[in-house]
Amino acid sequence: MARRTGRRPGKPETREAILAAARTAFAERGFDAASIRAIAAAADVDPALVHHYFGSKDQLFLAAMEAPIDPREVLPKVLAGDREGIGERLVRAFLGVWDSPAGAAGVGLLRSAVSNEWTARLLREFLTTQVLRRVLDQLEVDPAELPLRGSLVASQLMGLAMMRHVVRLEPVASAAPETLVAAIGPTVQRYLTGDLPA
Amino acid sequence: MARRTGRRPGKPETREAILAAARTAFAERGFDAASIRAIAAAADVDPALVHHYFGSKDQLFLAAMEAPIDPREVLPKVLAGDREGIGERLVRAFLGVWDSPAGAAGVGLLRSAVSNEWTARLLREFLTTQVLRRVLDQLEVDPAELPLRGSLVASQLMGLAMMRHVVRLEPVASAAPETLVAAIGPTVQRYLTGDLPA
Repeated sequence: MARRTGRRPGKPETREAILAAARTAFAERGFDAASIRAIAAAADVDPALVHHYFGSKDQLFLAAMEAPIDPREVLPKVLAGDREGIGERLVRAFLGVWDSPAGAAGVGLLRSAVSNEWTARLLREFLTTQVLRRVLDQLEVDPAELPLRGSLVASQLMGLAMMRHVVRLEPVASAAPETLVAAIGPTVQRYLTGDLPA
Repeated sequence: MARRTGRRPGKPETREAILAAARTAFAERGFDAASIRAIAAAADVDPALVHHYFGSKDQLFLAAMEAPIDPREVLPKVLAGDREGIGERLVRAFLGVWDSPAGAAGVGLLRSAVSNEWTARLLREFLTTQVLRRVLDQLEVDPAELPLRGSLVASQLMGLAMMRHVVRLEPVASAAPETLVAAIGPTVQRYLTGDLPA
């Protein structure tokens, strides 16, 4: 017997067809342009069935890329609090996820993204639409600057994950989380809300 | 006919035996602890032959890890100039290497390091002994802080390479180098010479 999970499983082959179509659509068109309707058509199922199996487009995307966490479970803590502390809170939450059991899946995703162009595209869409946009939407910064700010934050945080969990460069690899929060928080804060070059 | 290069080629099988022994030694023991003498013994050749084929231990290491550049050709420009500008100069030099033809080899090295523990170790030794130590040795900072400073710099710069050249997250992927120098230079400067958590 397959183990039960909280999510309605659906027929395995139908689920898999939807996930495959979703991966293609999200990687080729990006999260925003990919539609449930087009994904359903590519999988030859009714759009209502996609919603029934996976819920929202966000949830389908997380399932398609096998995301180890749903950022919506973590981000409220990051977003609650003063604007001046968001850099430290984001680094703290990021380390919390990577230092948890989900971190192993994160390393797997990073490995795959580095060797596989499609996973790289999915990771890019994940960072942009599921994490960075949600953080930046809460901050009063010039919308024209959001992409640069977001990709600078990603460069620092993904580099941190690389050095701590993949390359294991000491002392970043085994430093106490709060040491890294204090060291890297101000960087992320500046990328999010500080002055940037035009 | 094989193409001639500037370096004396030596017998291919002897060279390859030395390089294989060097890879093992540098990955297992680290750059500092690995000795030419032990590498020569493992390859069953005279130490003088290792020097004859490869030159210094630094040069042997760069050959063993197939480093696309010798940092000693780039770092003098980074190190020449005022202390307050070293962050920007390091980012500029880093981007110059990654945006050059050597960048493709850098991407290959990064891919390999992410999927292969031994390449990760060699990359770690490369960053530490060939790049970061040489930069930090020029700065008057507390020697006890050097490892943390170095690994913070690595986390930002390798994350930049990942986002610009592998994941290709826009606008970092196609930004003008000077935009990134202005945005990321102050981060690297703070990691090198600024106040850090104890």
